[in-house]
Amino acid sequence: MKIGIVTVSDRASRGEYTDLSGPAIRTFLDRVLVGEWEAVPRVVPDGRESVRDVLIDLCDREAVGLVLITGGTGPAPRDQTPEGIADVADRELPGFGELMRRISFETVPTAILSRQGASLRGTTLIVSLPGKPAAIDVCLSAVMPAIPYCLELSGAGKLETHPEQIVGFRPRT
Amino acid sequence: MKIGIVTVSDRASRGEYTDLSGPAIRTFLDRVLVGEWEAVPRVVPDGRESVRDVLIDLCDREAVGLVLITGGTGPAPRDQTPEGIADVADRELPGFGELMRRISFETVPTAILSRQGASLRGTTLIVSLPGKPAAIDVCLSAVMPAIPYCLELSGAGKLETHPEQIVGFRPRT
Amino acid sequence: MKIGIVTVSDRASRGEYTDLSGPAIRTFLDRVLVGEWEAVPRVVPDGRESVRDVLIDLCDREAVGLVLITGGTGPAPRDQTPEGIADVADRELPGFGELMRRISFETVPTAILSRQGASLRGTTLIVSLPGKPAAIDVCLSAVMPAIPYCLELSGAGKLETHPEQIVGFRPRT
Repeated sequence: MKIGIVTVSDRASRGEYTDLSGPAIRTFLDRVLVGEWEAVPRVVPDGRESVRDVLIDLCDREAVGLVLITGGTGPAPRDQTPEGIADVADRELPGFGELMRRISFETVPTAILSRQGASLRGTTLIVSLPGKPAAIDVCLSAVMPAIPYCLELSGAGKLETHPEQIVGFRPRT
Repeated sequence: MKIGIVTVSDRASRGEYTDLSGPAIRTFLDRVLVGEWEAVPRVVPDGRESVRDVLIDLCDREAVGLVLITGGTGPAPRDQTPEGIADVADRELPGFGELMRRISFETVPTAILSRQGASLRGTTLIVSLPGKPAAIDVCLSAVMPAIPYCLELSGAGKLETHPEQIVGFRPRT
Repeated sequence: MKIGIVTVSDRASRGEYTDLSGPAIRTFLDRVLVGEWEAVPRVVPDGRESVRDVLIDLCDREAVGLVLITGGTGPAPRDQTPEGIADVADRELPGFGELMRRISFETVPTAILSRQGASLRGTTLIVSLPGKPAAIDVCLSAVMPAIPYCLELSGAGKLETHPEQIVGFRPRT
């Protein structure tokens, strides 16, 4: 499976700043996934249009099964990642954002400012994550157990997790 | 009060499979409700249009005060119950979905994949539930205490719960 | 900073009833805020249009940085505050409503009926609160720690909280 890893950041996209968030996602996936998968990394500026365009490219042209997107989910004027995602999504999965905010709230009261979430475009699952590498780890660890089963149900394909790292949960049928 | 009980399932609607979910809701209501009420059962195929049509029929023609709808809330391509509900709803009540996912998450990490929720069409409350009978019981038990007061406020009418089963909560005024 | 305090109530707006909710918000702010701020109070009837109009007036003409709005978030037919807010909002912050419902649920099972939430119109943060003064205190205490940082990020300006009352949380950068 191809997995899109998108960093949304004005500064990183202009090269003024080294992207640490995309590589943090990559490191997380290298640790928890087993079997074959391919990272499709992207760095784009903040904004509704740039997010929309990169998602269309990844979903429709690159045919990725999963997109993990970091940055642009706060309340600052340039934070328009959720709006860009909503423009291209067919269906929303509100449980991802609820869980990520609830888990983060145990550490920081400003977790309620995060507009993270998850949606489907066709069979592709798009999950938006916080911008800071430490917070990315917390949030991905929380939602990752549900992702393989989601991709199986949506029709995106198989993703195998390392049983000693993350248990990719599948209900018995 | 009339209560619509809708099973959304391709297989059950074609008769390839005995519907267990609708009867599970019926059994739950028989146990917790007291006084007069009438079940209006329906079985429809998956899909946005079939959900939309059955809800319009139940709300506008049958004048039910409450609809409990099971199935089609996951991430599979045919799971379009939330979209069908959104098409006919006036107002959303996000607290129902949040609570059902939070409660289910205590048992299964894939609870975050559920797109359950509640909405109002006019005075009628529409609550979407999981497809599996065991999960229906967990979710209905969680939200039922708030339903009688909701129906009173929305103008749908009175629903009385058995005090030894579920306390239909009404705040003091 | 100017702070809009809006009471949405048919009876209070007709003078049939003394507004207790707006003053409860005012008392809360007097206690927790330090430094200069100015209250811009309003009392309007229930309804989508009245909410929309008062928010446009407060955000665009009065240039308030924060609006706290009470009433009209339940499931009664006249409860249309969330719809009025959605009409004027650019971006939603779902974490506020999730937290307020979760906190209130510890006391009352009917907390899931509340349609409270928060949104941004430009740089202005709009937070809807319950109608009852006691519930206002519980909900404002829960979300207030995140509000100063939110207003800083959105560009609305600085709001200082009294450190012995509420810690206005700001993550280290």
